[in-house]
Amino acid sequence: MTLRESVCWANRALRTEGLVTMHSGNVSAYDPETDTVYIKPSGVDYDTMIPEMMVAVSLTTGEAEGKMRPSVDLPHHLFLYRNDPKIRSVIHTHSNYATAFAAVQKPIPLVLTAIADEFGGEIPCAPYIDNEGDHIGQGILKYRTQAPAILLGNHGVFAWGATPKDALKAAIMVEDVAKTVHLAHQLGDPIHLDPAEAAKWWDRYHNRYGQG
Amino acid sequence: MTLRESVCWANRALRTEGLVTMHSGNVSAYDPETDTVYIKPSGVDYDTMIPEMMVAVSLTTGEAEGKMRPSVDLPHHLFLYRNDPKIRSVIHTHSNYATAFAAVQKPIPLVLTAIADEFGGEIPCAPYIDNEGDHIGQGILKYRTQAPAILLGNHGVFAWGATPKDALKAAIMVEDVAKTVHLAHQLGDPIHLDPAEAAKWWDRYHNRYGQG
Amino acid sequence: MTLRESVCWANRALRTEGLVTMHSGNVSAYDPETDTVYIKPSGVDYDTMIPEMMVAVSLTTGEAEGKMRPSVDLPHHLFLYRNDPKIRSVIHTHSNYATAFAAVQKPIPLVLTAIADEFGGEIPCAPYIDNEGDHIGQGILKYRTQAPAILLGNHGVFAWGATPKDALKAAIMVEDVAKTVHLAHQLGDPIHLDPAEAAKWWDRYHNRYGQG
Amino acid sequence: MTLRESVCWANRALRTEGLVTMHSGNVSAYDPETDTVYIKPSGVDYDTMIPEMMVAVSLTTGEAEGKMRPSVDLPHHLFLYRNDPKIRSVIHTHSNYATAFAAVQKPIPLVLTAIADEFGGEIPCAPYIDNEGDHIGQGILKYRTQAPAILLGNHGVFAWGATPKDALKAAIMVEDVAKTVHLAHQLGDPIHLDPAEAAKWWDRYHNRYGQG
Repeated sequence: MTLRESVCWANRALRTEGLVTMHSGNVSAYDPETDTVYIKPSGVDYDTMIPEMMVAVSLTTGEAEGKMRPSVDLPHHLFLYRNDPKIRSVIHTHSNYATAFAAVQKPIPLVLTAIADEFGGEIPCAPYIDNEGDHIGQGILKYRTQAPAILLGNHGVFAWGATPKDALKAAIMVEDVAKTVHLAHQLGDPIHLDPAEAAKWWDRYHNRYGQG
Repeated sequence: MTLRESVCWANRALRTEGLVTMHSGNVSAYDPETDTVYIKPSGVDYDTMIPEMMVAVSLTTGEAEGKMRPSVDLPHHLFLYRNDPKIRSVIHTHSNYATAFAAVQKPIPLVLTAIADEFGGEIPCAPYIDNEGDHIGQGILKYRTQAPAILLGNHGVFAWGATPKDALKAAIMVEDVAKTVHLAHQLGDPIHLDPAEAAKWWDRYHNRYGQG
Repeated sequence: MTLRESVCWANRALRTEGLVTMHSGNVSAYDPETDTVYIKPSGVDYDTMIPEMMVAVSLTTGEAEGKMRPSVDLPHHLFLYRNDPKIRSVIHTHSNYATAFAAVQKPIPLVLTAIADEFGGEIPCAPYIDNEGDHIGQGILKYRTQAPAILLGNHGVFAWGATPKDALKAAIMVEDVAKTVHLAHQLGDPIHLDPAEAAKWWDRYHNRYGQG
Repeated sequence: MTLRESVCWANRALRTEGLVTMHSGNVSAYDPETDTVYIKPSGVDYDTMIPEMMVAVSLTTGEAEGKMRPSVDLPHHLFLYRNDPKIRSVIHTHSNYATAFAAVQKPIPLVLTAIADEFGGEIPCAPYIDNEGDHIGQGILKYRTQAPAILLGNHGVFAWGATPKDALKAAIMVEDVAKTVHLAHQLGDPIHLDPAEAAKWWDRYHNRYGQG
């Protein structure tokens, strides 16, 4: 799969995985060799999206090629690529359970081994940030932790990774653990994991898991 | 797509998008050039619906063509077309999360940027209204705001737009934000957005979003 | 569709409509002309069920034809057919939202116009009943109202109608309104409908709705 | 179906039945005649899994054949097969509702006839256990009851049975009853079943249910 195809695949997966409603999420990825960011076009149905519709944007100039407009969230994606060379793919969603935590401006606490595995600690929540200039990108850098995802107050989720597949996994797992923690909150006070224990789960997951 | 086909498509989408159970929702649209409203037939399965089954009704006389009976909610649809020339498509659902707010007669508060984007402010809830004469249509006009949707106390949702696609988007987004806000309520008190901030999101969404 | 085919279709629909998990629900129907009840075989996957697998049982003798065992809930189905000639199809499920009300032994209150339409008033909940002899059938007759469905304490749902399609609609709508009322409970105290208003909705739905 | 095929089928079913997100669950089974455990490979998509990808492991030596790495949860599966000869298939999931109970370290109480049928009593919850050595396997043996499933504090679910189909049923039913009990908790205090009554349901279900 080319990077353009991979971005299209991940955008379509936002819908099949239940992370978006209507057109409310977007995926991009960055290819440093060609200075190109591929991103979802604005307001287009996921079901009919094809790779040719992904908008190519120069990271240096921010200018888009072709006739389709890029997502209105493009500036936040560009800011993250310009300021963290490890980030090669960015996803934004309003997935329901995670956004519920954002609406009350609370982090998703470290109460599950799955959170330790995937995020290494709680998933932070930035306060409300307006949509002008680089405010959202700056807020993400300011409030993020080691976790590859963050909640934005009253708004939604940003997740990232080295590839669209990695970023998609982070976005999916944010929603999954948000759901479980939300359900737990209704049964009582979820019991926090000891950070030292969390570190052991993170280590196992990052060093012994998968097909290497 | 003809308007008749578009109404059939939107009715079927009510089911595939999870907004209805059994036959509990309906879509119509109005063509002023032919004085015709197309509306779902009463009590028919969404899965087997075809455009020829949509019932054509004269807006002037309220009389239906053909052998199928129109939705029992026809009078409310006609009232809205007769009283607001900007409304060209109307949808009624009992979608679960939105109707939960209606059962407690509370609006969906302005606590998410997605609500600002799509509705510009809270989604209002009318008190309980009986089903006689024009009562429901009158209640919608009395209690609606700038938002293209309203909750009816103990009953459900009405949404509208310039086309079936627009009305469907409003109906889908009502349920989506109702779900997120409902989930947030269980985590604490959702934090309200400043109306001035909401106005900026609405402006961005309505003036810079989509493929123009 | 023969009655045997219709029973098979409704059993399979229990799964596609999300009312059952594993094998936890069953549908039967009664043909008075042949003294025959057709019912789901015990513990069989819905996805591979075919009409030939429905077990034919004599209402008079209670004896089953063929090699497959009928549902262990057969006695409750037979009791209802023997004691109410208007009932021609019976469904039993453990659908999640409705069974949640059963676990706290509370009825589903009359707080939605959809409840008035379909059930005419609250959906009652019998106390816990053991599974010996005719106890469940007798409990259903004792605690039911005009609604075509009842909750059994700590257990699940029974619904019925003149045909498998009618009984299925009742079973689906019990779960749908249970979900909405459950969600409403978490937002505050749902507001009750006036019984006189409910009677008007019921009348409209039963006398002016559908294709006649 | 060979046992290898059956393990693959059950792993894929974890996803189609909604018990897993991304790669977060695994199924194994043990064939005593060949001393072989078949288990899901680590970090592989369920949708593209084929029987040839299941990893064969010697129960005696714990060594895996072939090039794919087994699930990182392999040691817990092996421990159970080595210590309880009745267990021939093991499943681990983080299914949302059940894991919510685990996050608050509470059992799923005996409040439904479906819990009596399937589990014979409450589904226990072990305290938090770290992932070193045999700790998880030992914890499961220490805290389990007659039920073929257990919750692990802050972690998830283990379920087992005589075959992958049986273990899958237990894993599915844990999540199903967890959902209903969770929903019931929000409506009030679920009413407990008398253990003597539960024993009658368990007996009926295990001795008179199914096709024998």
